[in-house]
Order: sequence, then structure tokens, then C-alpha cells
Amino acid sequence: MSREVFDVERVLAGLTLEEKASLTSGSDFWHTQGVDRAGVPAVMVTDGPHGLRKQAEDADHLGLGDSVPATCFPPAAALGSSWDTGLLRRVGEALGRETRANDVAVVLGPGVNIKRTPLCGRNFEYFSEDPYVAGALGTALVAGIQSQGVGTSLKHFAANNQETDRMRISADVDERTLREIYLPAFEAIVTGAQPWTVMCSYNKVNGTYASENRWLLTEVLRDEWAFEGLVVSDWGAVHDRVPALAAGLDLQMPSVGSRPDDEVVAAVRAGTLDESVLDGAARRVLRLVERALPGLRSDDSFDVDAHHALATEAAAAGTVLLKNEPVDGAPLLPLSGDFVVVGEFARTPRYQGAGSSQVNPTRLESALDALGDVPFEPGFTIAGGPDGDDATLREAAVAAARTAGTVVVFLGLPGPDESEGYDRPRLGLPDNQVALLEAVATVNPRVVVVLANGSAVSLPWAPHAPAILETWLGGQAGGRAVAQVLHGTRAPSGRLTETIPHRLADTPAFGSFPGEAGHVRYGEGVLVGYRWYDTRELDVAFPFGHGLSYTTFVYSDVRAVLTGEGASASVEVRVRVTNTGDRAGAEVVQVYVRDPEASVVRPVRELKGFAKVELEPGASQEVALTLDSRALAYWHPGLRRWVVEGGAFVIEVGASSRDIRGSVQLDVAGEPLWGPLEAMSTIAEWFAHPVGGPLLRATLVPPAEVVVDETMQAMMLGMPAKTVADFGLTGFDHATLDRLVEQVAAQA
Amino acid sequence: MSREVFDVERVLAGLTLEEKASLTSGSDFWHTQGVDRAGVPAVMVTDGPHGLRKQAEDADHLGLGDSVPATCFPPAAALGSSWDTGLLRRVGEALGRETRANDVAVVLGPGVNIKRTPLCGRNFEYFSEDPYVAGALGTALVAGIQSQGVGTSLKHFAANNQETDRMRISADVDERTLREIYLPAFEAIVTGAQPWTVMCSYNKVNGTYASENRWLLTEVLRDEWAFEGLVVSDWGAVHDRVPALAAGLDLQMPSVGSRPDDEVVAAVRAGTLDESVLDGAARRVLRLVERALPGLRSDDSFDVDAHHALATEAAAAGTVLLKNEPVDGAPLLPLSGDFVVVGEFARTPRYQGAGSSQVNPTRLESALDALGDVPFEPGFTIAGGPDGDDATLREAAVAAARTAGTVVVFLGLPGPDESEGYDRPRLGLPDNQVALLEAVATVNPRVVVVLANGSAVSLPWAPHAPAILETWLGGQAGGRAVAQVLHGTRAPSGRLTETIPHRLADTPAFGSFPGEAGHVRYGEGVLVGYRWYDTRELDVAFPFGHGLSYTTFVYSDVRAVLTGEGASASVEVRVRVTNTGDRAGAEVVQVYVRDPEASVVRPVRELKGFAKVELEPGASQEVALTLDSRALAYWHPGLRRWVVEGGAFVIEVGASSRDIRGSVQLDVAGEPLWGPLEAMSTIAEWFAHPVGGPLLRATLVPPAEVVVDETMQAMMLGMPAKTVADFGLTGFDHATLDRLVEQVAAQA
Repeated sequence: MSREVFDVERVLAGLTLEEKASLTSGSDFWHTQGVDRAGVPAVMVTDGPHGLRKQAEDADHLGLGDSVPATCFPPAAALGSSWDTGLLRRVGEALGRETRANDVAVVLGPGVNIKRTPLCGRNFEYFSEDPYVAGALGTALVAGIQSQGVGTSLKHFAANNQETDRMRISADVDERTLREIYLPAFEAIVTGAQPWTVMCSYNKVNGTYASENRWLLTEVLRDEWAFEGLVVSDWGAVHDRVPALAAGLDLQMPSVGSRPDDEVVAAVRAGTLDESVLDGAARRVLRLVERALPGLRSDDSFDVDAHHALATEAAAAGTVLLKNEPVDGAPLLPLSGDFVVVGEFARTPRYQGAGSSQVNPTRLESALDALGDVPFEPGFTIAGGPDGDDATLREAAVAAARTAGTVVVFLGLPGPDESEGYDRPRLGLPDNQVALLEAVATVNPRVVVVLANGSAVSLPWAPHAPAILETWLGGQAGGRAVAQVLHGTRAPSGRLTETIPHRLADTPAFGSFPGEAGHVRYGEGVLVGYRWYDTRELDVAFPFGHGLSYTTFVYSDVRAVLTGEGASASVEVRVRVTNTGDRAGAEVVQVYVRDPEASVVRPVRELKGFAKVELEPGASQEVALTLDSRALAYWHPGLRRWVVEGGAFVIEVGASSRDIRGSVQLDVAGEPLWGPLEAMSTIAEWFAHPVGGPLLRATLVPPAEVVVDETMQAMMLGMPAKTVADFGLTGFDHATLDRLVEQVAAQA
Repeated sequence: MSREVFDVERVLAGLTLEEKASLTSGSDFWHTQGVDRAGVPAVMVTDGPHGLRKQAEDADHLGLGDSVPATCFPPAAALGSSWDTGLLRRVGEALGRETRANDVAVVLGPGVNIKRTPLCGRNFEYFSEDPYVAGALGTALVAGIQSQGVGTSLKHFAANNQETDRMRISADVDERTLREIYLPAFEAIVTGAQPWTVMCSYNKVNGTYASENRWLLTEVLRDEWAFEGLVVSDWGAVHDRVPALAAGLDLQMPSVGSRPDDEVVAAVRAGTLDESVLDGAARRVLRLVERALPGLRSDDSFDVDAHHALATEAAAAGTVLLKNEPVDGAPLLPLSGDFVVVGEFARTPRYQGAGSSQVNPTRLESALDALGDVPFEPGFTIAGGPDGDDATLREAAVAAARTAGTVVVFLGLPGPDESEGYDRPRLGLPDNQVALLEAVATVNPRVVVVLANGSAVSLPWAPHAPAILETWLGGQAGGRAVAQVLHGTRAPSGRLTETIPHRLADTPAFGSFPGEAGHVRYGEGVLVGYRWYDTRELDVAFPFGHGLSYTTFVYSDVRAVLTGEGASASVEVRVRVTNTGDRAGAEVVQVYVRDPEASVVRPVRELKGFAKVELEPGASQEVALTLDSRALAYWHPGLRRWVVEGGAFVIEVGASSRDIRGSVQLDVAGEPLWGPLEAMSTIAEWFAHPVGGPLLRATLVPPAEVVVDETMQAMMLGMPAKTVADFGLTGFDHATLDRLVEQVAAQA
């Protein structure tokens, strides 16, 4: 590879129309198009995001096992549960080192789609049901990866919240919901870390393919958020490259032959595609090459052991201790005394999901390996695991459990339940696992359940397990991490970034997911995740933000101080956290905002800040967070901008969305919310307007003989002024109204 | 008024363009436009629908008290709860007689909008949350009214399910939901009773005003349903008459002056409005005049006493006995022994809602009047009622209750809570009433609550009342009816046509109602009313269809026999019902259909038939109902037609949606559901196709060295064939795919 300076503008100026068109497509499955004549090399991109999936050169491109070994860090479900931006940054750096060591320009991740339903097959690749935590963690990960001189691809932009029919379905979702739920994680990462690339999703957004959605790719992404990088398609997401380029797509992947290139050339020649649009896309491809070259020219390697250790740390940090109730006077965890291990997953770990993110790990340790010499019974069979008969295995497990001090039961979702490309068939665990648990619990009440699953599972069997450890999918070091957590040599410090519901029928998208005839209605609007459960006052198994530790924390001195007003408001939140237990541990302090009264439906509370603090026993720390005005704002669907509506706000500080430890009410001065007055504005809107109100009140005086009672008055307030004129009520007519509209416009 | 024959076509042919344009508008608030020169009289229309509101000639048009006396029958909330089509027919006949006696051509009703939320201020004017029962009852009422030679106006067409911003809001609702929930009551009544007129609603449907919505007014209403009558606007619902006429509106009401007439003339002259469209509208106005003339020329009167008696019968038939638990070994109702009456509503009845439907009754009897000489304490104050202090009134009521045999407590919603023009502010009763009830229950456990409200209220206080009688709004004879029901001289025979939920947060439209910035998202789709609560498995206070009587019924011999298949399927359902108690009573047998597996989300059960039977003690009757294929079908959003999808169906027979007494499973042969195959059809769709399936299977053979595991196979099935070709998987390319598409099309 040439070591000359790569001058994008000079190269671009020297390219033919055909060459520029060729740059907007891959050359094969994993490489951009090079132009030898002009010294433009092809660069390679590979799947991610929790590890590199760089396929061997001769592999079938979807042959998911045939990739070079790479560290399999915990997938996003577990990483996200760490709520630890510092950790995400370090994992990102490690991923970046591996990417660079493999001469790859861009790792295709992270995925920051919102978990709209626990049944989404790809949830394990995403961080949260909440956009704030997803955005904060994604920003740290992207910054970490890119600090190594390689790129990321923030995906899947946007509203790709299911696998069912993902390549055709239209996500029918109103703008406010997009702005408040499905876009903010992307927005935070683009504005905070400038990923080298953004990957557009397969699906349509309100009827238009993301790959051809100009509003999404240009107006929002580039014009509003000032995205500077390249937009690449998800693999196969482009159906017509000419409108895609016009919409803001730069690079179609993979190569589908030369026909689209020819169409681009023809469109430019015919004048239906402005050559400057093509130049822009080609320029962004060249810039990507320019940015990648130093990394590709270097001769790097990475430390396999150190990355495995980091993967271990990350797995423990993402492990959520859901419950740890005392049995015989003491909690079961950390383990004390003898125990038996039950469940095939202890021996055959589930540590990542299926599909394009599947990594060929550098090493793999099961929990059983890591726990050392302990009695083990598989208890049940799993698809692809050793043969056996469930009833026989269960009997043996029960026999072992009967005499054990404690039983540690490893349960989880079958591998094929969680994959890219299709959604989960069920919310619960398979019957054979539940049967095992129930049988074991009958003979021994000291049951610890260790769960392995990439997305929330229902836990109707939870009463049988005094302790439950949710490990999600732990990556290649998950076995070691869980062994350390069980023994207490590491603390589990994860918190839920997704609510665990009781039943599928309680979930927000139930009834609209996965859609019909090519459309999925986002009927729940902004009420996604805990916003739904908390606002609808639904009981849940474990709430968003929940997670125990091996110690206890007390919150005190909760304060919130408001500065400024409206769009310049900010709130400084402070709280003291004290470790009141006898072990070190980490607490995730969560700050929620409530807006009890607003002109729109607002979720009962929304996460707007968090901090993870590690404290020694007895230690105490003041946590300070600053919320900007956006934390108070909603997207006004009429004005089409963020607004802070004046009134009372409550700042809540807590350990989960349902464990609020302190709150402060603030009275915030808001922005004016009126739009221009017109004939179809209601009487109430006229009355509320600083100019139109007095004018109309002076005009709309009922004659003395007309009695306007409470009911009549309320009816009138909801009527457009035009309708009042239609009715000729109290002599108010269209000419008068027209005059008023003009007067208001003149004074505006 | 001339007694000549009125020849519509002759008159029409003789009208000038200006005269025809003038016919498409009213002449004032309540009359159509006449054309003296051509012998076309103006005819009068008046508000309804549970009684005539014919305004005195000199009245302010919304001065709601100034109308001629008319029988105030129970509003639709109570009439609907009767589930009695025979009764509705007779009430309709009486309404028709009063209309005719008043020389009115058309009474503006009934309203058959679906109760999407209990907070809709106008729910008291509507029948149900279920379109089947609303359609059946509305058909009977319209047929009854029109049997008297006067017309009806079926309203408000369509998706007018709230009062908030009703004159501007867009009901954003997918077609399947419209077809299955919001349109079928209109469809049933149009096809079953041909109302003389249909009234278009104020609101927009999916962005287009109903008054300008051609799909609604022409394609669906006239082309599909063969509506033969006239479309009139709701008062003030037309904003631009030219596009309204083009969409299918015939008559703009009220008059807003001559400008719209001039615009119509100009549009015809300019060629932007086809004169045949105007001719069609003018012809329908003339036909309305033609139909009305015989009634207007007659000299009728009506029997005030007989109508009052019918109103009494209707009120009792619509009264729902929600609970009647034993106290001291026996139910409290019918009353036995001495009792005291508490609650201002016993003296100051709430018997109708506010707004355009408000009738000036021919007489009015309170429950207290009807109960005769019984002790009474008002207990609380109401707006517009006698002055008083709540605490003092409550104390006096408690004192009276302490020594009474039984306490009958009259509670209800304040009048201003339920009106046209705005929505209800709350789901529950006012605090002063609940406080009274709780205080009374503390001193006397024998509490009967009598409720007066036009739409469901939450009943968190229900444990304090062993007996609850929901009278809805009972019309002018409601007081007499409730007295008879309390004494047992009439049986309460109503059943709920709307679910009574526990909390507002449980209701389907919570979170999307009442919308924002001019749009309300029908996010719950088809899951409205019990379809929501039953499918989401939510606990409710009292389920749809529920209602007790003073006797008991046993269901036996439930049978269901299927004939035919697909679109020609029909099911005959039979059940034997026996009165096993010692009083006469009426039972409402309800038939629900379940479709446990379908390609779309279906409600867990849907009402598809019902019958009300009156039985003497010990008597028994076989009820037989026939369901046609529509009862099994859903609206296919892709094929845009009703389809019967093959598979198992369960026919359920019960006394409420949650009290199923017997069921029969049927295996129904369905219709083919595949559409044309194309490149974007998924592999699964190709495989399911009778022609395309074998072709693709023969082509898409993986090479021997490629291992396709379970996960890979599932991913592939969800991929469009085009994407598989994009990826070049297994050598399948675009040329091959193009050939297959052609082959399938050729064989279709």
C-alpha cells in the first residue's frame, strides 16, 4: 500500500464520472471499491460490534464460524447493564486495537436501537429500552474504538426495532416518538463522538426505506446533528441507488454488480441526479479511506490475555443481581459452604447471539471450568448440546440437589431463540428448564438461578429461587466472571437497562408488534419500556434500573438547583451516596425527570442522568450531575422543535425507576408555546394568545339576553373561531374574524 | 304547502345552476333551502336522537332549553344496555311519531360512534364499545323511526370518538381498525335500514376532513355499502364546499351565507367541478324533500302518556344490576323492609347529557317522587342543585342511615362532566359523593348504590356497596323506572355494552387520547373495549356483557354447526337457556368468536351475535343464531378485503365476555391468502405459494459444502428473494429471480 499523502480533493478532481459512481458501492461483500488508476485503495469493513468478525478470505460470507479469532466481549445487553461509561470506553479501545491489528478500517457497530419489545431477536446487540443510557454508553464505546484510528458504524438508523420482515416493514411512528425515543441515542453519539460512519437500516420509516429517506439521512443526520461522516447501507438495504444517493446515502453494501453504478452515471448524464450529490458521496468515501490509511499502514497487534481479562471485568460489571433473599437468615450469595452446579449452560455456555455479530472467540471458558472441581448435573438438554433424556437428567439433578448445601442452577434461552433475522418465539424459558428448577426447589430451598439470555425473559418461577443472577450473554469470559461473582471475589454491579415484565401481554408493543402487511404501528408512542409500565401503573417483575449488590447504599442530601429558564434552563443535581454495608460495591445513581402537567402526554418519569460510583465499606461520595434544558423538554409536534413548557418539574434521584430515594420540585419558567393564530384556531387558543386574546375578548361579547352557562362556555372554548363565525353566534361573523386575524398577524 | 306530486327529475331539470348550488346548503340553522319558483319547499331537520330538540322559532339556536316539549327517552348509553332490538324498534317508532307530529323531516340521529375511551364527553349518545351490538341496535332504531315516514341521520361518520378538538383533529387510524371497529356499525345500519341521511363528522380521518373524504363518503359509503340517501355535514363541518361535493357531501349545514354557493357555481363554470356531481347532490336533496313531503303534509299527534310509559320500560330495560351480594343471607335487591334514600340525584335527577341532544321533556319524575313517602337526605351538593354544606349534609345522611333497614344511595357524575363539545375531566365520581358513601357504609352495611352517569365510571368504592345498580342516564322516566326496579316490580335487564375498568391507566386509549397538535393516534388498533382488556388479560371492575337479574339462568346444549367454507362459511349456533330462579327475568345470550391463530393480531374474542330472551321461572328456550362468514373474517390490510383465514375457530356462548358458558371448536377451511409474488416477496412467501414455491425450491439448492443450520434457515425464510439475489447466496442471482417472477406471473 502506498505511503504517499492521500489528498481527497485532488483524487476526487481526477476521477471520471464512472469512477465516482463506482465509489458509492462496495467491491465485494466486505470492501469498498478502489480505483487503482487514481491510487485509491479498497478498505475493509467487518461485522461487530462486541468483537471483530473478519471473515477468512475464502469463507462463504455468511458462514458465521469462519472468521479470524477475536475477543468476544459481552454483547451490548450485558455491556449496557454495566451503566459504566469508563468501562465502555476501555472496551472500545480494546475493540479498536483488534480492528487495527486486523487491518480493518471500520467495525460495524455499535447498534443502539431501542428495545421496543423483548421479543426482538436482536435485542442482545442493543443497549437499552431507554435512549439516554443507550446514547451515553454508545458515545463512550464509539469514542474508545475511534481513539485507535479505526472507524465505527453507528447502526441501524433508524427505527429498526424488530427482525420480523425487517427488510420491508414500515415503522409507522410519529415524529415526536422518533425524536424522543428512537433517535436520541443516535443523536447523542453523532454529536458526542462523530462516528466515522452511520449505517442506515433495512426498514422503511413511515413508508420510505431508510436508505432513501432524505429527512432521516440528510435533514436530521447531517443538517441538524452536523454528522460529518459517511452513510453506509445495511447489507442489502439499497433498492435503488439513485434516490438513495439523493437522500443522503453514500455507500451501498455489499456489491450487487455494476448495474447500480451504471444507473448513477446515467442519472447524472440525464440530469436527474445532480453531479454534486455524487461528488459529495464519493468525497465521503475517499475521506473514509484517508482516515483509515494510517491504521491500515501500521503493524499492530493486541494482547489476547489483557483483552480476555477486560472481557471478564465487563461481564461481571454487566451482571445484574435481581434478587438475593435470605434463606436460613442469610442471603445465598456470595456462596458459602458446599454447592452443586446444575444446568447444561454451566458446561455449554451461551455467551453471544446468532447472526452477523457472532465472533470466533480467542478462548472460551465455561462457568463449570471456572468454578473448578464442583459436582455437576446437566439437568436438561439443549439444542446442539450433548444428547440426553430430560426426565433422566432431571432426576439425577434432583438427587444431587437433595444433599447439596446450595444448588446453583444455570438456565437460559436456547441459542436459536435469539438471532438476527427473526424474532423470539416466546418470552419465557423452555419447559424442560422450568420443570428442572421446580423439581430442584422441591428438595432444596437454597436455589441460586444464573440466567443466560440476551433479552428479558419472564420469570413466573422466581418464587422458587431466593437468588437470581442475570448474566445476559457474557461473552467469552462470562464463565469466569460468573464464577467470581458467585464466590464474591467480584461484585455483580449491573443494573437493568430493560424492564423485566411479568407477561408478554403487559409489554408496550403487544398487539401491534410485529405488524401486518408491511406496516408496524408504533401505537404506544413515547410510552416505551419503563415509560409504559410506570405511566400505566403496571406491576413488573423487576423494574428498569434495578440491581442489587453485595452491600447496601444510602442516599442523602438530594438537592436540585435550577438556573435560567426555558431553552437556557439547567439543573444541577447533587446527592450523597454512602456504602452502608460491609463490602465494597458499585451503585448506579439514576436521575429521572417528571413533568406532571403538560400540553402533551408525557411519561411519568424519564431518565436524564446517571453515575456509577464505587465505594468501599463506610465510604461516602457526593454525586453531582448537570441536566441541560433538553432534559426538561419535549418535542412539540406542532411547532416541530424541542420546547420547555413552563410549570412544575420534579427531579427524582433513585436506584431504579421504582425506587426513588429523594426528589425536588422545581418551578421552571417555560417558553411561549403559541403558534400563529388563524381562523381555525380555537377560542381557547385565541384567548391564550398575548395579542389575539384581548382582541377577541373585546369582540366576542354575548348580548345580555344570552345566558352562557358552564357547559356552553366549555363548548365554545374548544370551537375554532371560524366555526363560531359559521354559527353567527353573538353576531360574530367571518368579516370580523378575518379582520382579527390580520390584526394579530400585523402585531406579531 | 302544495299537495301536487313532487317529481324530482322534472324539478331538477328545471333548475338553474345557481338554484342547484343553493340546494347544497341550508337556508338557516335548521332548514334546507327551498326554491319557490320551482315548487321546492324547505324542510326542517332537528337534533335528536333520544328525543326531539326542535327549537322554538325565536330561540338562539344553541339555547338548549328553548325547544318544544318532547319525550326524553333514555339516551343511547341506557338504550344500548337493553340489548333489545324489539324495544329499540318501538322507541324508534315513537320518536318517528313525535318527529312527524312536529312537521320535521329528519331527526339527527342515532349516533353510533364507538366508545374508544370512557372519557369521551359524548359517550352517553353512543351505544357501545362494540360495533356489532351498536350496529344491531342502531338498525332497529333507524328502522323504527323511518317506519313513520320521517328520516334519520346516522352520525357522526366517522372516527369521531372524542370531543377534544373535534372540529380539527385527525383520527390517525389504520384501515383494518376502521373496517373492523369504527365503520361496521355504520355499515350494518346503512345496509340494513338505509337511513335517509348520513351525517359526516367534524374531524379529519387520516388527515382529510370527513366532509372532504372521498374514500369515506363515496368509495366506502356509496360504492361499497350502496347507500342511497343524502350526506349532510355536521353543523359547521364543511370548510370548502367544492371539494366536499366532489368527495360525496350533498348538504352543508347550517347556512353560512351565499359565498359557498357562489364558489360552487364558479367551480362548475370553470370546469373544476363536474356539473353531474352537483346534479347528484341536488337530486339527493330533492329526494329527501320528496320523501319528507307526505309526513309534512299530514296532521299527526302523539300520545304523551304512552310514550312516557315506553320511556319507563326502556329505562328499566337498560338498567344494569352490577352486583347484588347477599347481606344477612339475602341479596339487598329487590328491596325488602324499610329503607332511607340518600343522595341529591334522587331528588334532582340526572337523566340526559348536555349539548345538542338535550331534550325539553314532556314531564319529569325524580326517583324520590316515584318512591313515594320515604325518608330522604341529600347527602351532598351538586352544581346547579340546592345550596348546602357537604359536611353537614353528610352528617345528616349518616344519622339517617344508622337506623335504616337499608340505605339507597344515589350517586352520579355532575352534569357538566358529560357534554358534547368537550371530554370528561375524570373517570371517577366526585370526592364529596365517595366520602358520603364511605361514611354511610361505616354505619350501615346494607348499602345499595344507584348510579346515574352517561359513560363508565371507576368504582374503587365498590366494596362498600353490596348492591350496585347502573341506570346510566334514564331519560324523563328514569326516576319511575328505578323505583320499580328497586321494588322489584320491574326486573333490571340491562347488560354492559362498555367495560367498566378499574383505572384510567388501564384503558386502551390512555396515552394517546386526546392527541397532540391536531392528531390522535389510534395506537391500540383493533384492541378497543373488551378486545383490549381480554387480549391484554387485564383485570376489570365489570366486564363487557355483564349484568345480573333477580333470577338465575343456566345455559346448556351449546352447539355450533359449520356449513360451507371461506367466504361462504356460515355457522349455526344453538343454546338452551333455562330460568332456574323463582322470578321472571331476561337473559342476554352472547356469542363470541375466537380465532386463536391468524396471520394478523386478532382480539382474543369478538361479539358476533346476541339474543335477549324473557323467561318465566322454570321456563326454558332454545336460542338459535346464524353467523355468516363475516363473523369469522378479518380485514386483510394487504389484500384490502375481508378474508376468512383457515384453521381452528372457537364459538363461545356466554353471559359476558368473561363468563363463557360453553364453546365449540370448528375447523374452517379458509380462502387462499397469497398475493402476487415479486422480487421483494420473502423466501417464506415464495415457499408458501402454490406455483412459486416448487419453482424456487428447485432453484435454491445450497451447494453441498454449505451447512444451513436452524438459525440460518430461519434468517433466510424472512429475507426477500431480491436480497438473497443481492447476496449471491448459493449462486442465486437477479437474472434467475427475474425469470422466476415471470414464470409465476405467467402461470397465475
